[in-house]
Amino acid sequence: MQGVLDVPPEIVPVSTLLTRLLVRVEEVFDRQLSSDLPPVASLVKHVENYRGKMLRPSLVIASGLASHPAIATTPISQYESLITQDHMVMGAVVEMVHMATLVHDDVLDDAETRRRGLTVNKLRGNEAAVILGDYLIASAYHLCSTLPSNDASVAVGRASMVTCAGELLQLHHRDDFSLDEPTYYEIVARKTAELIATSAELGCVASRADPAVRLALGRFGRCVGVAFQVQDDILDLTGKESVVGKSVNKDMEKGKMTLPVIHHLAHASPRQRGRTLQLLDLASGDGHHQRQRDLVLALEQTGSFEAARAGAAHFIAHAKRELSMLPVSPASELLRVMADSVLARTF
Amino acid sequence: MQGVLDVPPEIVPVSTLLTRLLVRVEEVFDRQLSSDLPPVASLVKHVENYRGKMLRPSLVIASGLASHPAIATTPISQYESLITQDHMVMGAVVEMVHMATLVHDDVLDDAETRRRGLTVNKLRGNEAAVILGDYLIASAYHLCSTLPSNDASVAVGRASMVTCAGELLQLHHRDDFSLDEPTYYEIVARKTAELIATSAELGCVASRADPAVRLALGRFGRCVGVAFQVQDDILDLTGKESVVGKSVNKDMEKGKMTLPVIHHLAHASPRQRGRTLQLLDLASGDGHHQRQRDLVLALEQTGSFEAARAGAAHFIAHAKRELSMLPVSPASELLRVMADSVLARTF
Repeated sequence: MQGVLDVPPEIVPVSTLLTRLLVRVEEVFDRQLSSDLPPVASLVKHVENYRGKMLRPSLVIASGLASHPAIATTPISQYESLITQDHMVMGAVVEMVHMATLVHDDVLDDAETRRRGLTVNKLRGNEAAVILGDYLIASAYHLCSTLPSNDASVAVGRASMVTCAGELLQLHHRDDFSLDEPTYYEIVARKTAELIATSAELGCVASRADPAVRLALGRFGRCVGVAFQVQDDILDLTGKESVVGKSVNKDMEKGKMTLPVIHHLAHASPRQRGRTLQLLDLASGDGHHQRQRDLVLALEQTGSFEAARAGAAHFIAHAKRELSMLPVSPASELLRVMADSVLARTF
Repeated sequence: MQGVLDVPPEIVPVSTLLTRLLVRVEEVFDRQLSSDLPPVASLVKHVENYRGKMLRPSLVIASGLASHPAIATTPISQYESLITQDHMVMGAVVEMVHMATLVHDDVLDDAETRRRGLTVNKLRGNEAAVILGDYLIASAYHLCSTLPSNDASVAVGRASMVTCAGELLQLHHRDDFSLDEPTYYEIVARKTAELIATSAELGCVASRADPAVRLALGRFGRCVGVAFQVQDDILDLTGKESVVGKSVNKDMEKGKMTLPVIHHLAHASPRQRGRTLQLLDLASGDGHHQRQRDLVLALEQTGSFEAARAGAAHFIAHAKRELSMLPVSPASELLRVMADSVLARTF
């Protein structure tokens, strides 16, 4: 997380603790995926390079701290004592589920770059990538089922179902240029926000937090997740591959309707709307770089990037209001900073 | 199962009970996959047509009966009282995991036919098929995690990992014409037999059987699973699509080494070996129907189908020996008949 956080001085100690705990999450992750079969081990090794922001395990830990019944009475120097192996395991589980969706998404999107390296599908073929994704999902569930209570397994299973349902809904609306904002948000709430919401909830499960706190942090995570996807939409249109670290301009090519485009089509003049629809229709043909630039110009003219950013900011403001139920602590402050960082991120 | 079982009169009542219980498994299966999102519901509907032999849930139920501590003292008319909702849930879980692998396998194999209908990938595209497979896996794990104990979740998670590892190993050895029998059996034990072994074990878990009985039935299932795959290899080479119900001749086209081919290459004269390698090398090009017929003729000349059938029969004999630990009952007799039916099946 360090990279995306603009950290105020009072939360430096808890942010440093988070960084240290993420190393332990990585250890659990690597141990679970280790295999004595060389072809499996070599593919898994590639996935380790995918590791990026670790947003989901960071949420497990930060929400685990912030929701802990003893947080208000624990000095910051003792925060580590509130974190158990269950938090580490749940962090590794959500990151593994996320990695599985990345690997399969890259197959579906025919993407070439991820975290500044070649994707598994480009490097080893679609077949290896599909099976590797399945291996990651299976490993995540297996790891999760070793926890003493089945609360986490139920939550992770349900979140994965909802994520897939969201992806199927998105696929169903491919090239649907009449897609409206409510339907867009329905898709995003499922395909991106559900696992992020579940990550925040799992922190509460591992900390045996009050059920009402768990629900509030679930809503916090859901809002953060929606904002995260809106920012992703913007970066796909305006980001440079060298900064974002993954293939860009894939949404338009794949007929995925994103928030800036939906806003634009709803607010452009009839003539401009016609021109834009033509650009979208031809997205994947020759000369698509020029058309991508034309599209960005058109979206700027209707203020559609600002509108999308305002939409994301609205969700982040809502997310932060959900934190009012928590006792004030450097840990809840960390959640606030993490929420804000979603708006500022360029990768 | 009815279709593949040549049922001796003494086990008709337990076989009839099995058929009735499989209907309840299907109900659990359908309820778990139901969705109020039309694009999800319509894809799931397609999967219901995939339902075939129900081998894995049949094993859960039959082994659940045969391993039940009260089986010897329960009259056959009361067998149904030994079966709980947990057996039904576990049956639905293993069938759902199996369906997920079928859906993904058809993407990997670019297969067109399954259970006499078009595959999801042919009908709805590879993307829908990959996500649908993920949805099925997630649904299976979610359903499994609702069981009171996590024994089943651990077993299913582990079996899925092993299955994927087997598929990765198989992919690694694609077009490896020097693949030997031990490596072939290593692959098959993982990619096919592990989930079948786990199905037999889950029956014991749901029946709270003695741990030694669970281990024996796991070995039984593993042997049945290996034999099942060998028979699958033979059917892919010699079966008619109209009888087998799915695309045939896919193994050669996809560079998958099967037991009859491995046997043939090890026993053919140097000249014949050279000719066969040429046939295999050109498997997916024009005129592959003729080459497929030439390959079958060559395999017949080295007695390689008989050798593969003998290999399968050896594993079935071993499987049946594992049943000696069970009290004699119509339920253990049913397991014996199920094992034999693997050798006789033509689809």
